[in-house]
Formats: sequence, structure tokens, C-alpha cells
Amino acid sequence: MADNHPVTSVFPYEQLLSFTTAIFQKIGCPEKDARTAATALLSADLRGIDSHGVARLIGYVRLKEAGRANPTPDIRIIHETPSTAVVDGDSGLGLVVAPFAMRIAIEKAKNVGTGWVSVQNSNHFGIAGYHALQAVKEDMIGIAMTNASALVAPTFSIERMLGTNPICVAVPAGEEPPFVADLATTTAANGKLEILQRKNEAAPPGWIQDKEGHPSTDPHALKTGGALLPLGGDRDHGSHKGYALGAVVDILSAVLSGANYGPWVPPFPAYVPMPTGMPGKGIGHFFGAMRVDAFRPGNEFKHDMDNWIRRFRAATPAPGHEKVLIPGDPEREMEIERLQQGIPLFASVVEDLKGLAEKLAIKFPIG
Amino acid sequence: MADNHPVTSVFPYEQLLSFTTAIFQKIGCPEKDARTAATALLSADLRGIDSHGVARLIGYVRLKEAGRANPTPDIRIIHETPSTAVVDGDSGLGLVVAPFAMRIAIEKAKNVGTGWVSVQNSNHFGIAGYHALQAVKEDMIGIAMTNASALVAPTFSIERMLGTNPICVAVPAGEEPPFVADLATTTAANGKLEILQRKNEAAPPGWIQDKEGHPSTDPHALKTGGALLPLGGDRDHGSHKGYALGAVVDILSAVLSGANYGPWVPPFPAYVPMPTGMPGKGIGHFFGAMRVDAFRPGNEFKHDMDNWIRRFRAATPAPGHEKVLIPGDPEREMEIERLQQGIPLFASVVEDLKGLAEKLAIKFPIG
Repeated sequence: MADNHPVTSVFPYEQLLSFTTAIFQKIGCPEKDARTAATALLSADLRGIDSHGVARLIGYVRLKEAGRANPTPDIRIIHETPSTAVVDGDSGLGLVVAPFAMRIAIEKAKNVGTGWVSVQNSNHFGIAGYHALQAVKEDMIGIAMTNASALVAPTFSIERMLGTNPICVAVPAGEEPPFVADLATTTAANGKLEILQRKNEAAPPGWIQDKEGHPSTDPHALKTGGALLPLGGDRDHGSHKGYALGAVVDILSAVLSGANYGPWVPPFPAYVPMPTGMPGKGIGHFFGAMRVDAFRPGNEFKHDMDNWIRRFRAATPAPGHEKVLIPGDPEREMEIERLQQGIPLFASVVEDLKGLAEKLAIKFPIG
Repeated sequence: MADNHPVTSVFPYEQLLSFTTAIFQKIGCPEKDARTAATALLSADLRGIDSHGVARLIGYVRLKEAGRANPTPDIRIIHETPSTAVVDGDSGLGLVVAPFAMRIAIEKAKNVGTGWVSVQNSNHFGIAGYHALQAVKEDMIGIAMTNASALVAPTFSIERMLGTNPICVAVPAGEEPPFVADLATTTAANGKLEILQRKNEAAPPGWIQDKEGHPSTDPHALKTGGALLPLGGDRDHGSHKGYALGAVVDILSAVLSGANYGPWVPPFPAYVPMPTGMPGKGIGHFFGAMRVDAFRPGNEFKHDMDNWIRRFRAATPAPGHEKVLIPGDPEREMEIERLQQGIPLFASVVEDLKGLAEKLAIKFPIG
């Protein structure tokens, strides 16, 4: 098999969950937190967002080793009102801090209709969709976003100022599965670029620019001073809108909480030096939960939401396309498939996990 | 002057405000409501969003004449919790209903930190930015969105299912002016297309598709069964994200309130027949207000927000560009200019206003 089509092996979800939980325990997380973190992390693999799943486990371990992630954080509310809170994550894993914060948003929504929680002093939280979906289980609309280290140049700039800053809005339905809009505010997520880098294939125009700000199709352009482009790609195609959306995520996640924002957000790779002159603490997230019955009787809402989903699913497809998708469809279908058939991992990821297992003296796989 | 560069005349803001208020009174609005509606409508002209301002006054009058807009609505809360409400606009002008609903969001935020109001049974509300900025005056983050009649095809579809569904998020700062992200969830707003139609110029690829779903640069393609494209343009450039964002606006504005959604949203032009089988009432909006001091002390927030704005304004510009803009900069600069120098109107708009004045037996201009 050629280098650009790496060998994959397939592992049952439960095996990877046990292994990942064990790794988080080995770096000092209490068992309950380790399980929480592993569940959040592997939700990315289940939903087909492979770049954000177990492939990053080694990155989280390195953050702990570098003293940048605290395995036993004292996560706490530092400011609150009936519908809001700011949470200090105490440098914990975002995979643990985020579920804590989302739980507070949900509890506040139970009391006063909605809950909104901005988080400082956290680390990367995996995929936004996992956190937003916690609210859906309680018949609430869930919202999750996070900032991330700067890879994206604003419109008219060559400087990396924003992360890929995802937004997720998840909405419960009745008989239909939930609607889940989960999107990076860039034309393409960094994970998609990584796939092209591995294959050495050109990126479509509108994804990246080079260090002089010229459009580029080189998937490696980020390594030579280039930048990802905001959703829209260029000014004519609305990149100022993607820039504005990424900026909103940054402000709600970090200016509202006291975390770092813009070019000061700490990088995920532990070997990359921290930015100088950081104005806040750690990275920031923002969560929301809105009880649907704080607006309408739940059964009426669900009836209309089912109708919405069915009508959009029945929209006339364009030639060459079978059907119109509802946001969340591909990830949900992938989750069903991978729970049954297992999670495929690239050989390089398996090697990383085996190395990690050896170093921390546990088995791979477990189970 | 050539046909494709229509003659413009310039009118002082106060003249247009008096005239517009008088027109709304003539169609039956109480004086206070007429003033509210005129102020909201003309904020579009001041901010340079000419397509949504006084040029649409005749459209609002026609809605009243067609019995679709109620000049004396009984606008009321029909469901609420401490942080939420649903407002029934009683078929009032959105220009009156929206300020009422935003005021409720602000009052709820004063009490419990945030306020969220979904609106049914309304009409078009002008520009989202005007409504969101009401919260900024109270040191709150303001959020405004609305659905609109279907012009946009979801990714992989040829059917118009969504409006241009704008989102505005406005954030107060300290010494710096507010941050105002105000964007249609399409590649280009319909107003920009109208400008190209007037000039008979081609649209950039990625804005529209023809009735078969092929990319089109014909600015008139919407009249022959084509559709606007979601932000991103095509799947490779993230149109599924623009579609998802437009869908979120539709759901929060209409499924949450009991308004019409998707292809059932009533059209703005009174001569266009209403959709059949409408599931809700009127069009829907969604508003939010979040007190910044429900998260952090206000002065700390403003200090960081000023720092955010200054750092982004100082980002290295791309060659050929002078500076990086903060969302809201162009509209604010335009507002300052037009308050001083007046509002330019195309000859065709002036003709419409004169016709309206004659029909309703009032002077144009007033003052």
C-alpha cells in the first residue's frame, strides 16, 4: 500500500474507551474524570471527526507532562447570576472542564429557562458537538463553542489572529433525530487540511493563503507562514462573515470569561512556545442551554421540529445528488456504523498509542 | 448619466425621519409606533444598507394595504420564564414588534443575567444590527436574528428553502466603539444582487445557482427559478456551514416561537401569493441580551474588549490593504458621514416616495 494511503486497523469502541480511560488515569486523573474525558474524546472518533479524537490522546498527555494540563483541577464557579456563570477550569483538561460547565448551564436552564456559561483557564475540549448534545438529552437546545490557537487570518490580513473557533447548535426533535449544526468558522477545518497533507494533494482554492496573503493550494502553506481562511474564503465570497463569526466565538469564550483571546490563545502542541504577554488564563469556551418548554410546550415544539426536518429532507435534490442532508446526519450515521463495526485508526496513530502504552506501562489495546 | 448609474439625490436624515414617521401614521400606526418604526427603518440607510431602508417603505405600506400588516397590533407575551419569552406580534410591523421584544430581553437580562425572546406573527424588522445595538446601550451583548422568505437552496438542493436569515451579535467595548457582526447567512445579501441587477453586471461565482443547480453568474437567475447560495457557496467551500447557520436562525426564530419556517415564510412583496399549508403565524425573530456584568465586572470586560479591538485593528494587513477592519467599522463610519452629509437616494426610490406622498396626501420631503 502506498505511503499516501496509510494502513488502518479497526478497534472496537469499548476497547479504545477502556484504553483511553486508563491513560487519563495514569497521568493522574481521578477515575470518574478519566472516564468523562475518554468519553468526550472518543465521541469525535465515533462521529467521524478523526482529527479530534484518540489521535490527539498523545497531545493531551504531553500537555500534562509540560505542566500545562492539571489532572486534578479544582474546577469552580467564580461569578454567577441565575442564568449565567463563569467557570475557572484550573488548567484542567477541557474534556473534563467542559462537561462540568455544560452541566451548570443545564441546571440553570432548569431553574430559569436558560443557562449560559463562559469558561476561563481551560484546555482543548474535543468536539463542540459532544458538549452541545448533553443539553439535547434534557430536551434543551445546546450551544457549545471554543476558541483555539491562532491559525486563521482575518479578511485583509496576513497575520494569524483566530483559531478555527467552532460553533455547535444542537436541537432536539420528536420522532426525528436531533439537528446538530457543528462547524468550524473557517472554510475548511484543520483536520481536512491534515488529510491533504498526508496525501500530498492540493487544497481547493479558498481554504488557505500563503505568508504574503496570496491564495494558495499548498496544504503545507501553514508551515511556511500561511494561514487558514475564514468561512467564505475571500471578501467577494463573504470571508468577512466567517471572520466575524470566529471573532464572536473568541469574544464569548474568552473576553467574557477572562481567558486568552486572539493571537494569545495557548497552542495545543506542548512543544510550541506559549505566546508572550498573555492577557488571560488558558483557553476559553462558551456554553448555552435553552429549555424548549421555556418557549413553547415541548410537544408542540417537537411536532414542528419533526416537520422542519422532514420538509428539508424532502427538498428537491440537485442533479447528481441523492438527497438533502440535515445538519448532523453524516455524523450520526457514522456513529451508528462505528459503534457496530469499530473505529478505524491509521497505522501512525496506532504506533503513537502503542508507544504511549509502553511508556505508561499499560496494555494496548485493553479488552 | 447612463441607466446603470441612476441619478441620486441627497436628503437630510431628519427630513426622511419626519416623512417616514408621517407615512406610518397615515397607514394607521399610533405616533409612538410610527416613530419607532421610522427610526428602525432609517437605521439601515444611515448604516449604508440601502436595500433595507426607506427604499422598502412602499413595501411596508403595501403589506398594510394587503391586510398583512396590522398598524395597531396587540403585541403580547404568550409564554415566559425568568429568562425567556415568546412574543406574539399580532401581525404588527416587525419594525415595531422587534423593539418591543428586544426590550423584554433586556429587562429579563437586568433581572436574571440574560434574556431570550422568540417572536411569532411578525413581519420584516429592517436590519438585525439596529435591534442588537439596543442591548449595547445597556452594557449588554445584543443578539438579533430573523427568518425571511425562501430564496436560498440548501447544499445539494435546487429548492429554495431558507431566507437570507441574518445574525447580528453586538458587543459593547470601553473606549472603543462596539463590535457589531451583522451578516446574512448567504454568500451575498440579496441587496448586493439587486445592485448588480441594476447595473446588469455579472455576479461573482458562488453567489447564485440557476434552476438546475448549476453555478451561475447571472444576477437575474433568481427570477428564472435559481437560488441564492448559503455562505460558502459550494460544498468544497463550506456551503453546508452557511446552510446550517441559516437553519439555526430559522429554528430559533420560528420553530421556537410558532412562526412559519422554511419554505412557508410569508414573502415581503405583498403581491406575491402566500405559501400554502403554512404551519405557523407570520415570520419569526429571535433576540438575546446578556449583561456583561453577569459574567465579569463590567470594567474588566471593557478593558479586555478594548484590547481585543486594538490588537485586531493592528493585525498585519495583506499587501494592497490599508488595515484590518473590526466588524461594524464600515457601518459606523457610514452612519457618522450620513448624519452629517445626508442620505443619498436613487431617483427610482425618490419617485416611489413622491408617489407615496401624493397618494397619502402628505408632503415629500418634510422639513
